[in-house]
Amino acid sequence: MEKTKILWINPINVDAYDQPMGEFIDTIRLPGTEVEVISFRGSIPLNNLEYRTFEAMTVADTVHAARYADEQGFDAAVIGCFYDPALEDAREISGKTVVIAPCQASVQLASNLANNFSVIIGQEKWRAQMSERIHAYGYGSRLASMRSIDIPVPDLQKDCEYTAEKIIDAGRLAIQEDKAESLILGCTCTFGLFETVQKELNVPVIDPIVAAFKSAEFMGSLKKQFQWYPSRKWTSAAPPEELIQSFGLFKNPPSIGNRYLLKEAL
Amino acid sequence: MEKTKILWINPINVDAYDQPMGEFIDTIRLPGTEVEVISFRGSIPLNNLEYRTFEAMTVADTVHAARYADEQGFDAAVIGCFYDPALEDAREISGKTVVIAPCQASVQLASNLANNFSVIIGQEKWRAQMSERIHAYGYGSRLASMRSIDIPVPDLQKDCEYTAEKIIDAGRLAIQEDKAESLILGCTCTFGLFETVQKELNVPVIDPIVAAFKSAEFMGSLKKQFQWYPSRKWTSAAPPEELIQSFGLFKNPPSIGNRYLLKEAL
Amino acid sequence: MEKTKILWINPINVDAYDQPMGEFIDTIRLPGTEVEVISFRGSIPLNNLEYRTFEAMTVADTVHAARYADEQGFDAAVIGCFYDPALEDAREISGKTVVIAPCQASVQLASNLANNFSVIIGQEKWRAQMSERIHAYGYGSRLASMRSIDIPVPDLQKDCEYTAEKIIDAGRLAIQEDKAESLILGCTCTFGLFETVQKELNVPVIDPIVAAFKSAEFMGSLKKQFQWYPSRKWTSAAPPEELIQSFGLFKNPPSIGNRYLLKEAL
Amino acid sequence: MEKTKILWINPINVDAYDQPMGEFIDTIRLPGTEVEVISFRGSIPLNNLEYRTFEAMTVADTVHAARYADEQGFDAAVIGCFYDPALEDAREISGKTVVIAPCQASVQLASNLANNFSVIIGQEKWRAQMSERIHAYGYGSRLASMRSIDIPVPDLQKDCEYTAEKIIDAGRLAIQEDKAESLILGCTCTFGLFETVQKELNVPVIDPIVAAFKSAEFMGSLKKQFQWYPSRKWTSAAPPEELIQSFGLFKNPPSIGNRYLLKEAL
Amino acid sequence: MEKTKILWINPINVDAYDQPMGEFIDTIRLPGTEVEVISFRGSIPLNNLEYRTFEAMTVADTVHAARYADEQGFDAAVIGCFYDPALEDAREISGKTVVIAPCQASVQLASNLANNFSVIIGQEKWRAQMSERIHAYGYGSRLASMRSIDIPVPDLQKDCEYTAEKIIDAGRLAIQEDKAESLILGCTCTFGLFETVQKELNVPVIDPIVAAFKSAEFMGSLKKQFQWYPSRKWTSAAPPEELIQSFGLFKNPPSIGNRYLLKEAL
Amino acid sequence: MEKTKILWINPINVDAYDQPMGEFIDTIRLPGTEVEVISFRGSIPLNNLEYRTFEAMTVADTVHAARYADEQGFDAAVIGCFYDPALEDAREISGKTVVIAPCQASVQLASNLANNFSVIIGQEKWRAQMSERIHAYGYGSRLASMRSIDIPVPDLQKDCEYTAEKIIDAGRLAIQEDKAESLILGCTCTFGLFETVQKELNVPVIDPIVAAFKSAEFMGSLKKQFQWYPSRKWTSAAPPEELIQSFGLFKNPPSIGNRYLLKEAL
Repeated sequence: MEKTKILWINPINVDAYDQPMGEFIDTIRLPGTEVEVISFRGSIPLNNLEYRTFEAMTVADTVHAARYADEQGFDAAVIGCFYDPALEDAREISGKTVVIAPCQASVQLASNLANNFSVIIGQEKWRAQMSERIHAYGYGSRLASMRSIDIPVPDLQKDCEYTAEKIIDAGRLAIQEDKAESLILGCTCTFGLFETVQKELNVPVIDPIVAAFKSAEFMGSLKKQFQWYPSRKWTSAAPPEELIQSFGLFKNPPSIGNRYLLKEAL
Repeated sequence: MEKTKILWINPINVDAYDQPMGEFIDTIRLPGTEVEVISFRGSIPLNNLEYRTFEAMTVADTVHAARYADEQGFDAAVIGCFYDPALEDAREISGKTVVIAPCQASVQLASNLANNFSVIIGQEKWRAQMSERIHAYGYGSRLASMRSIDIPVPDLQKDCEYTAEKIIDAGRLAIQEDKAESLILGCTCTFGLFETVQKELNVPVIDPIVAAFKSAEFMGSLKKQFQWYPSRKWTSAAPPEELIQSFGLFKNPPSIGNRYLLKEAL
Repeated sequence: MEKTKILWINPINVDAYDQPMGEFIDTIRLPGTEVEVISFRGSIPLNNLEYRTFEAMTVADTVHAARYADEQGFDAAVIGCFYDPALEDAREISGKTVVIAPCQASVQLASNLANNFSVIIGQEKWRAQMSERIHAYGYGSRLASMRSIDIPVPDLQKDCEYTAEKIIDAGRLAIQEDKAESLILGCTCTFGLFETVQKELNVPVIDPIVAAFKSAEFMGSLKKQFQWYPSRKWTSAAPPEELIQSFGLFKNPPSIGNRYLLKEAL
Repeated sequence: MEKTKILWINPINVDAYDQPMGEFIDTIRLPGTEVEVISFRGSIPLNNLEYRTFEAMTVADTVHAARYADEQGFDAAVIGCFYDPALEDAREISGKTVVIAPCQASVQLASNLANNFSVIIGQEKWRAQMSERIHAYGYGSRLASMRSIDIPVPDLQKDCEYTAEKIIDAGRLAIQEDKAESLILGCTCTFGLFETVQKELNVPVIDPIVAAFKSAEFMGSLKKQFQWYPSRKWTSAAPPEELIQSFGLFKNPPSIGNRYLLKEAL
Repeated sequence: MEKTKILWINPINVDAYDQPMGEFIDTIRLPGTEVEVISFRGSIPLNNLEYRTFEAMTVADTVHAARYADEQGFDAAVIGCFYDPALEDAREISGKTVVIAPCQASVQLASNLANNFSVIIGQEKWRAQMSERIHAYGYGSRLASMRSIDIPVPDLQKDCEYTAEKIIDAGRLAIQEDKAESLILGCTCTFGLFETVQKELNVPVIDPIVAAFKSAEFMGSLKKQFQWYPSRKWTSAAPPEELIQSFGLFKNPPSIGNRYLLKEAL
Repeated sequence: MEKTKILWINPINVDAYDQPMGEFIDTIRLPGTEVEVISFRGSIPLNNLEYRTFEAMTVADTVHAARYADEQGFDAAVIGCFYDPALEDAREISGKTVVIAPCQASVQLASNLANNFSVIIGQEKWRAQMSERIHAYGYGSRLASMRSIDIPVPDLQKDCEYTAEKIIDAGRLAIQEDKAESLILGCTCTFGLFETVQKELNVPVIDPIVAAFKSAEFMGSLKKQFQWYPSRKWTSAAPPEELIQSFGLFKNPPSIGNRYLLKEAL
């Protein structure tokens, strides 16, 4: 069987996370999975999506990246932010590429491991949007609580020990007070911490990067094996190609500012 | 009392609708309401948002327009498309400007006039996204049905008589088969037709342009009178101004390709 | 354009609130809006609707008042109690008059200003009925909490400073503990206090009298301008006029015990 | 054990149904159950509640009847209309009397006999209000459909054979098209027909009079045996007696226009 | 009228509860109701269903008991555990016997007595399954809270005074903190305690044994009187008898390890 | 990395499907995945679970098989029936083994490929139980419809061409009439047909065996790689081992009537 090819999109305009995430993904990919990690080349140095305003600045680039994923023959693409920004838009234009996002992937996995989950969030700000996502995916009744650790995104990786400590504190409260049976880390910037938390708290702790990447690898392999491509019927239909051409929608190259490649087998 | 100032955003990259919509709005505004109709200057000649892919191309510009609305002291801004694209994003950054969108405005009005409504849509494609919007706004149980007239957006205004006929046919079926008690026209491009349909079918027929514009005028006047500005608490918080500055988020002028002004009183 | 005519119904049998509310409404109406404030002439001196039992005593009179509103050519009528008592009944018989009620008007306005709201109630007793209303209107998922100030209706206006203090305390808790982003005052007897609370707490504070009156004025003007009359189709149908006549349903004059008029322009 | 005492309220102003319903109830009561069937003495000859407007005219009388039920020591009272009009109001003031209504009783019984049910209604008009009731009671997901037989209330008992035929036709469609597994007759005026329909269609057919009366008899006996009186806590609290007195709320005798008594054992 | 015959199934493999429950039921049955209390003869001495694993061991026996109930002409059968284990399965095969279970019976009764209820559970473990049941029955919005007394099933009857005390404490918190207006005791092993709790807390306290037994007696009598047998249509259909025979599904006698009979009248 | 070990449980008492399913699974497993397909040795020759009654007969054996899976070190176990029978029970006792079932696996996969799905069922009988499952999993709003092909389970594989034809007909109607964008085959006995249907109808067609097996393989590998074992906290807790021992719950060998092994690599 051919190799599965995954595009990991960091939907921000700086390359700071590309290599560390790529290196982390390198430790979890299947032998034979090829990965390309990209970030955008947007004109402003956006380094997080904590606000909808920031997210809005990247939506067009994410859509273009989904188009690029299809053109380059990627089996699956991941939008690397727990808000799952532009997921439905990217899915519309992704052709034969399956598009996966961390929040949806995490709740699907967690529901196979526990009757409910709490989400650890960085700030109260995140609550409404993530809660809406989880309800829209159908998992609202399994959401035991959201607990904030009160650390903005750019600081999450500044002092990992401190962050881990705060996550453990919030997670413990989620378990004890809110009767959570599993935890989801609600930010893709906390990668690498889930195992510490899991050992400490003794419930499954879902890292959204792991969840999203492994789900993409999985859906990508199913796509190859069973021709399970995204539906293009009714509301899943893509714009007609003539219209795309007439608008010159993708005449410019996609907004890729940086590439980090994982090609050779482990 | 000062004049109410409204920004009407046509979230597309052509100016074709600006004047006709402006002229239509001119016939429905209160004396003393000032209106600025704008469309974007995007590099591709996008003339409709029928697909999520197209919509995604305009999200950043809509957000920038919402910022502009606040800076220019508009009391309210309208996103002129029935998908209500980027509504939550625009609301985050709009400062003291109230942001209104046609779908939400229409269902709120209709619920004061009838126990349920059907939405007339252009194509099956629209169903999922609009239905999700209506459910998210809390009006899912009042949605009697969606009925498609099978005409793509760019053709809706080509032959208004034909469009009106199709709307009347679909509306009649909605009333007879789906027990609809009122109708909402699910596209901002059908303006001017609601009165014909209303006379023919004898139920309230909500034109989303009218609904959105008049709601914006209304919310804008309430804002002035009672200081009912958008909340900036918790999940409604805007990004910190320092961060906006450091990213240079709005250092460029907003993406305005065309302006149509209604200044003087009727 | 003709003047908009509004009927404000205080659905109680004493006239104590008519003048103060009328005077308050006088400060918020548009120039040219004519208002008639009425209360009922019921045989028992009912001065509040805090219990369903009391409310039940007024339902027939409210329905008759809605009929009267139509006969007198009012554009809109308001049922002046936050329980929205007899709203659906009044809407059935109101002919061309749009009927508005404070709770529905308040949640519709609040949803344009914040992602959620808390309702400040006078007593625990109110919780179930108001909560049911809010859920029925489709806004259950936006209801952050209800917080009681433990003051019965007749005492709410006894010591306004004390009431305001209690509202501010409850509102602060709603914001801090329940993550409320806006507040709705759950009683029409607290009019005049919202601005104090709003200044203190720095989130939008919706006064239900303001919300209901301004919404009625708005819907009334839309009715005139666009012939947006209440639907009379299917479940919105009124009883056949023959039946009304044969029963002599409205042969007696409506139950109006007091009238307070606002005619001349501001 | 003492006899169970039931008050059956026909919430209309004519006595036409009192004797036939009483005679029907006589055939289904337990030995030892005492029954008083009443109708109101309202000034207008209201003989049906097909419209909310009509219903509103009777709400105060129903509440007064619930008070009367408690004062006279009735164990349970039934509001004899499938809209369950004023049920919550009557429950508030009924003291130690349990208040039962046909729609709620019917859906509770039906759910013990089948996975879903359809409701046969007289006219399309009834759909919204009954559907709201059923959803509010928590049985919305079991409602397979509502099917109208297009006969107004006053005609339902004019030609019972014709009515039965129409019910059988509608019921058969409900079973075949809507996959109904049981039927509820959505009007208390169709009593006596359920057995014919049941034999013909071979699914359980719930007569709402039977359901309501037998449920009242049941709850009434439980009340006696286990002191299961209505809760008077929080939102179930009744108005304070002092307030009732000071308003003179029940100083007049209840609005009873006719009485039909079933005292002696079968 | 013939006597109503009830089968009470204790779905465990020990007979410890049969006589005490039978004696308790003897104090609450109607004159003329015949009761057979059974437990199973399973090879392992299962004495509680606190875990799904235990419950699973009894499902086949419960189904067989439902078949037996029909064959022996029981009018109704009760599955005596508040998880309502195998209720849907038993209902499928029970022929003309109505099958009742404590949780569903309790929430139906409670909803006639109060606007909401809290359930007192033995351990946190029970929360998910009971909560799912209550939501599935349509009563999720009336569930004020579940409060655990932290006592495993086998200890509930060890020191009844201690258990009652803990129930009263939990119930008081449910009323004060969670605004409960009635209580349901979430275990069939606490029978006999509800009256103490009810007197102490002054809200209706539903004992699930009483609720289930009396509901079965009620539904059983309705079945006789009105031929209200369980539906056998569509999803309520039983397996074809030929298939049952060909599998030899019920060729062995039912798994009855003990019988306690109540035959003669009180 | 060690090999992933999967237990596939055919929860019936005949071995007829073991080899064909095993051979089919052999064509889709990853190199290195070991599979054991089992069926039960129950005393009655149950060959399908079309009725709840039949399903009930197998629940204890499925639970025992889940225990066996844990004892034998299987990474994941699959319950091979689209009703997902005894899923929650098996998950409770499965220790470190992840338990997967076809319906849940199918809806999770489908939701990554299309905005909605229809389920093709064998008979109307299946509708309620499967619909409840899908709603409980949170995917009710994505269920476009269920369409029956009117073939009982034992006949599904009798004439595969006929079955495929009927599936294609039902699927086409689901797409055309119900606006389905993907299909799920609602029975594990139709394996092998999905590719034919998919080619014909040009939307993703999910085979529940493929979905369940591949999901189990996936979750099993995640378990190994990230220690994502099932939660054992709160409602996910297993019974205490002492209790299991004292009951002798698993003292007998599991009910395995037949084994089909896939050990060597592809």
